[in-house]
Amino acid sequence: MSMSSESRARSLPASPPPDPTDLGSCSIEATLDLVGDRWTLLIMRDIFRGVHRFSQLQDDLGIARNLLTDRLTRLVERDILHKVQYQERPQRYEYRLTAKGMDLSPALVALMGWGDRWAADGQPPTLLVHDTCSTPLEQVLLCPVCNETVQPSHIRSRPGPGRQE
Amino acid sequence: MSMSSESRARSLPASPPPDPTDLGSCSIEATLDLVGDRWTLLIMRDIFRGVHRFSQLQDDLGIARNLLTDRLTRLVERDILHKVQYQERPQRYEYRLTAKGMDLSPALVALMGWGDRWAADGQPPTLLVHDTCSTPLEQVLLCPVCNETVQPSHIRSRPGPGRQE
Repeated sequence: MSMSSESRARSLPASPPPDPTDLGSCSIEATLDLVGDRWTLLIMRDIFRGVHRFSQLQDDLGIARNLLTDRLTRLVERDILHKVQYQERPQRYEYRLTAKGMDLSPALVALMGWGDRWAADGQPPTLLVHDTCSTPLEQVLLCPVCNETVQPSHIRSRPGPGRQE
Repeated sequence: MSMSSESRARSLPASPPPDPTDLGSCSIEATLDLVGDRWTLLIMRDIFRGVHRFSQLQDDLGIARNLLTDRLTRLVERDILHKVQYQERPQRYEYRLTAKGMDLSPALVALMGWGDRWAADGQPPTLLVHDTCSTPLEQVLLCPVCNETVQPSHIRSRPGPGRQE
């Protein structure tokens, strides 16, 4: 790997050049566009926890009514939540996860894990456990061929089928 | 499990009551407080990709100079990035991941995975692969006792040592 002229000149730690295949369109950005808003993620957290109704969400989050309406409307439009009627007169709905919403579970688990490790003084407020044995769960990256867990330093990226040059 | 009076009255789908052990302090919220800002997450993504310098970050993200300065300053203050000098005259620094920053890898992987599955029309722009065998990696929850992967519907939560009643 060639070093930049700046680094070579000073013999200071070199920066590897950015991998050009790795820039451009990005699914992280796409996710943030759809659910990256702070209130949206906190609403999704509450719904995973079993808080499904407008008034419950409002009470738990301390969010303004118009903001909650706005976020829930968008989440329904984006097929992340769906509305289920639970009362007819007056009509009342609760908000349930779609498959697309349920699939945010790994992202919420990951955000929670980081907070547990770095913002909880070693004292996680909540443990996620296996329902059948109550063992705390571990989020890992698996290589299905090597059948082993892979640490971040062993992740590489390559262009996928959706790469736009 | 008792049904709420609203649900019982109408025989419409019941909402299970929120689990009271599951509310209160939350590591998801703690994480969002520290890195939940959209620009912050995009900066972290770029730094994972090898974009380490102010001008490179500014070019890649199209972010205003003052916003980038603000976000990088906070990330250094919070020990998520550290500055490494790469040039002496004039002094120039690049931004590197600390252990705390590197540990955001699972969260970025999870956000990317959701975007790949739900916002990329089945065509992920980038694949994360195992460096030794180039196989695409899978992010899973493992139960270390049962030695099996656990689906979201089999996650339960229980109060951890940091629970504040």
